Parts: sequence; structure tokens; C-alpha cells
Amino acid sequence: MNRALSTAGPVLIWGTGLIGTSVALALRGGGVQVYLKDTSPTSLALSADMGAGIPGEAPAEEIRMVVVAAPPDVAAECVVKALAEYPEATVTDVASVKGAVEQTVESAAPEDALPRYVGSHPMAGRSRSGAGYAVEDLFYGQPWVIVPTPASSAQAILAVRHLAVDMGAIPLDMTPTEHDSAVAYVSHVPQMVSSLLAARLLEAESTALDLAGQGLRDTTRIAESDPKLWTSIIAGNSGPIASILEDLSADLSALVERLRQYQEGQPGAVGIISEVMTAGNQGRSRIPGKHGGAQRRWAEIEVLVPDQPGELGRLFGEVGSAGINIEDLALEHAAGRRFGIATLMIDPADLLRAVDELEERGWRLINTGTVPR
Amino acid sequence: MNRALSTAGPVLIWGTGLIGTSVALALRGGGVQVYLKDTSPTSLALSADMGAGIPGEAPAEEIRMVVVAAPPDVAAECVVKALAEYPEATVTDVASVKGAVEQTVESAAPEDALPRYVGSHPMAGRSRSGAGYAVEDLFYGQPWVIVPTPASSAQAILAVRHLAVDMGAIPLDMTPTEHDSAVAYVSHVPQMVSSLLAARLLEAESTALDLAGQGLRDTTRIAESDPKLWTSIIAGNSGPIASILEDLSADLSALVERLRQYQEGQPGAVGIISEVMTAGNQGRSRIPGKHGGAQRRWAEIEVLVPDQPGELGRLFGEVGSAGINIEDLALEHAAGRRFGIATLMIDPADLLRAVDELEERGWRLINTGTVPR
Repeated sequence: MNRALSTAGPVLIWGTGLIGTSVALALRGGGVQVYLKDTSPTSLALSADMGAGIPGEAPAEEIRMVVVAAPPDVAAECVVKALAEYPEATVTDVASVKGAVEQTVESAAPEDALPRYVGSHPMAGRSRSGAGYAVEDLFYGQPWVIVPTPASSAQAILAVRHLAVDMGAIPLDMTPTEHDSAVAYVSHVPQMVSSLLAARLLEAESTALDLAGQGLRDTTRIAESDPKLWTSIIAGNSGPIASILEDLSADLSALVERLRQYQEGQPGAVGIISEVMTAGNQGRSRIPGKHGGAQRRWAEIEVLVPDQPGELGRLFGEVGSAGINIEDLALEHAAGRRFGIATLMIDPADLLRAVDELEERGWRLINTGTVPR
Repeated sequence: MNRALSTAGPVLIWGTGLIGTSVALALRGGGVQVYLKDTSPTSLALSADMGAGIPGEAPAEEIRMVVVAAPPDVAAECVVKALAEYPEATVTDVASVKGAVEQTVESAAPEDALPRYVGSHPMAGRSRSGAGYAVEDLFYGQPWVIVPTPASSAQAILAVRHLAVDMGAIPLDMTPTEHDSAVAYVSHVPQMVSSLLAARLLEAESTALDLAGQGLRDTTRIAESDPKLWTSIIAGNSGPIASILEDLSADLSALVERLRQYQEGQPGAVGIISEVMTAGNQGRSRIPGKHGGAQRRWAEIEVLVPDQPGELGRLFGEVGSAGINIEDLALEHAAGRRFGIATLMIDPADLLRAVDELEERGWRLINTGTVPR
């Protein structure tokens, strides 16, 4: 990121975990002066060691921007303190829930400080947390939601937008209600549903788990997430989440009732299964594809890959040397299998050439290219 | 598969879709004579064109084994007919539900034919169906559940076990009840839950979907599955599925109730979120790892990969040329991002060497190796 940044420093990063330290590293990479603050001396030291900025007391009157990257349950409190302690600074927070944070800030901060506050939410993260996983490209190409309050000044909104663009992110404006509903749908509800589904496995016989395939692995992957972090996220957005879960609960109850009716010999009851599946097809098709466009129709090629060192490398190397970009890929395998199946998603325009190149080199294609629905 | 098979032919494949044609191809590869039967002339012709066997009338007295690979809702009926029409044959079916099929067979087939019937369920499949996707290695290394009835003869059970081993599969014995419960947990309930979750997205604002990340994509991937096929699978196993969904429904209702209490100011109510998350962690950890062993603790390395032709190939090529096997991988990207993050899962013994090799070649490692929980 060797370009001039629009963000004017010095910037104070309040909370030096994954997000805070990543913002700090990106700002430092652009030559902006950064101060670091954290209640954890360990996290602060690690972040400073990574070159994220200067730990300890910041010159209060000089700070031009404060980025509160504290856990969601203390974010509002930190914003209120920051507005008081840094009188010249635009203050933003990166909490993944916005309505609750903004309400608290509006009620607790002095009215004349409110124009300097703008909430935001960078949609980035890693499977692990902490400063040690920070990278300056973390936000590159990701949406960064900007959530002003009615009191936010145009100048403060512009400053936060500049910060987002400096991070390489794509700024998106939303109201707190729009934001909290959106993350409930795309993140919080899927998390709860995946955890509830995985929890059922505690009742299964262990021999049953021997039959687990990719579908179970995919649907329960995020059930590995951290309970502590997620408790504060879900609690902070409990209203929108509860509403969606109530609708899901109604659908689930209707399905169970019809399955029971079917068992009692009412064959018409089976229609609901098809309705659930079809609605699932339609809902799934609303998720946009890679690079944020409408869902692109990548051509798919499925290749049998021996489970031996170098075979995947040979495959991707041969596709790459033909100048064909792999847009997405999936690797499928299962218990005891000595072959994997690599599904390569490529531009349909490259399809015939890719098939020729691969077959020429002796690859076993299971599916020589289809365009998914 | 150039080895002598234990299965004695001729074999009749009744139903020439993905599974039937794959079994046929594997048998033919081992020199076994195969006849093909299907109500669809198109499917039959395609399967025959692929070299799966001889279409049309089979010599009834000579057939030694019949594999019924018809859709689950007609499997039992085909088994009963096969027992009558092929008096010397062991008959098996590959339907993904077993209790209902075996009950129908037991009540409809003559008692003296029942010893020749043994149910089975190969745990293999592709994301697409039909003879065109058949491959003879489809079952290689996958579990093949063998589900005898109380009347099944030892000889018939052995014949079906030989068939599974001939396919390269791992035979597993289960009762119909054990089998149907197992597939409800690992396959049918996850399918219904994924579809119900994806269906909620129909209510979301389209801007909300712009925030979709990998978690939503993974949890809803199987919501793309075929409604027609799944209606017959779910209906055929409605009892065990309904029981698990009832338990899930109770957990979900409890969660929603507590979220509503929390909104009304009862802070203790939030404890349930942590309980749901923790139970999800525990359930997820019961899913065995690759190659059917206990979940292995692969070391993970996360590498930043520019979104350009050949970069993935170069990465895997370089790992492979160091003799390091990639046990699993995940490719992460999101809207508009110009970099992907490849997570390589490798043997922990190879970790330090892999890190050295990659860094030497200029790869940007986000995470230089952790052993997952």
C-alpha cells in the first residue's frame, strides 16, 4: 500500500486486537503517525512490536482520529470517553453491531461532541483473533459499512470514508437498522443455526459420525467459532436476530408437523419438503458471487486428484501456465479416500481450452465443464 | 482398478443413474459381465454408450447379483420384482434410506426369497446426478453401509460385502435403525437446516447480501441441492428426521425466548448464547477428520495469494516440490478482494520446512502455522 493516504494523523487506535492492529499497520504503511491504547499490556506490546505504532499516552489535543476497535460490549463506552478525551478527533468504532452502540453514545456523550462520531463496520476478519494475526491488507476489497448518526457532521463522515478507502475497502452507507438487520441475516443467524445444528451431533452414535460427508462439514464449520466473542456479538444484536430466528422457528415447526402427518399416512404432507428445498434454492441464489458482482456463472470442471504430494500443485500449475485463472475452487474428499476431487471454477470463455490442456496432460476429468445454475 | 474382483457375474444393474452406472463401470473394469436395466431409454443408452454394460433383457436364470440403483421411492418395489425375476441372484439396493425399503421388501416378497436380499448404502455421490457423471472410482475409500434383514443369508451378506470391497469402499455393518438415524444426523437434517436458513435470505434487503461472507456461503452451500431428489429422501426417512428436528426446534425456541428476555432487560438471559456456542463447538469436534481416523490435528498455514492466473499453481507447485502433501485446503475471498487467502493443512511434522520453503520463495504468510483445536 505505497500510496498517499487521505487520512490525516496522528490517529489513535483504541484496542489493539486483530482489527485495530491491522488498521494501524495499514496507516503506518502510508506514513500516518499512529498511537496505540489497550487495557491489555500484552496485546499493546505485541501490537507495538509488530510496528503498529507508539504505545502509551497520546497527545490528546493533537489526535485527529480515534478508531475504537474494542470488543462490542465496551465499544460505546470507549467512544464516549474518546469524544471527551480527544477534543479535536473524529471518533469511529468498528463494532459489528451498530444500533446499540450508537444509542448509548447518543445518550451518554455531550451533545456538542456528537457531530464528531460516525460508526463503522469493516466486514473483514480472520478465523483467529489477536494482534498476532493482523495484516495491513485485511480490509482490501472488503465492504466497510459506514453508519452515521443523525448528528454526525459531513466532515466526520468524510473522514471515516477516507479511512475506509485508505484501507483499500469499499465504503457502503447504511442506517443502524439496515446494518444490524443485514449482519443478522448474513452472519449472526447463520452462526446460531450452525451451532444449533452441530449441537445435535452430541446425541448421535459415534458410528453415525463415520458417515459424515462434506455437507455436514460445511454446514457446521463456523460452529467452531469462539463462544466468548459471539456471546457479546449476538447479545448486542438480539432484536433483529430473534426476529429472524422466530420466522425460521415457524418454518421449522411447520416442517416437523407435516413430517409427522406424513408418517401418520397423509401423503399430501410431503409437499412441504419440496417447498422448503425450493425456497432454499431461491434464497441461496441471492448471495452474490466473487468480487461483489451479481452471481457470475463460472464454468466448473471437476478433476480427480491423487492424494499425493505435488499433484494439486501440478494441476494448478498446468492450469496457470495456460493463462487460465481459477476463480474459485473446492476440494472434496472423505473418510479413507485416496483421491480428492478438485472443482475448478473458471471463466466460461476459458472452458474449452482448459479442458483440452488438462486432458492433454492426462488429467482425469469427472465433469468436463458445466455452467452452474 | 486392475485387479481380480470377488464379485461373480453376470450382474444386473437396475437403474443406470450416477450410482448404478458407476458400479457397472467398476465391475466392467474388473472383467465382470454386466447387464443394464432402466425405465428411461435415454439413461439406459447413455450408460451403455459409456461402456457400463449390455442394455436390455438379461438372461434371468444366469444373473448372480442384482444391484437396484433406482430412486428411493421405487427401490423396494424393484427389489421385490428382482427377487421374483432372478431366482439365483443376490439382490441389494443402494437407497439412502433403509428402514422403509426393508419393511416393504419383507412384507411384499415371498418368504423363501428373503434370504437373498441385503440392503446397502454406499456413501458416495456427486454434486450432479445422472449416468454422465459416473466414474468407476466413485466409491473408492468411502464407507459402504451394509444393512442385512434378520432373514438375510450369510452367503448373501458376504456377496454384498464383496461388492463393496470390489468398489474400493469400506464396508460398515449397521441395522436399519442405526443407519437411518445416522444419515438423518449427518445428511438429512443438515440439508433441511441449510435450506431453511437459505430460505430466510428471501426476506433480506438486497444490500444486506452485499455483506455476505464465507460463513453464509458454507452454511447454505447444500441449499442448492435438487428439490425432487431430496423430497423422496426426506419423506423416506421422515421419522428419524422429525425427531432430531423436534429437538433442534426446542433448542431454537429456548434461544429465541431468552433473546427476547434479554431485550426486556434480563441480563442473565444471555448465558444461553454461550451454551449454544459451546455445545456447537463440542458437536462439531465429533466429526472425524480426513481418511476416517480420529480428527487429526493438521498444522495450518495461511498464505496471501494474488488473484492472478498461475499464482495458486505456483504455490501448490512449490509446496509439492518440497515433498509436502496438502491434506486439505480452503480458499477464502470476498467481494471485490484482489487477494485470496489459501489455508493449507499439512502434517505438523512438515510445518517448519514448509514455512521455510514458502518464505524463501517470497510468499506472504499470514499465519506461519498453528495446530487447530
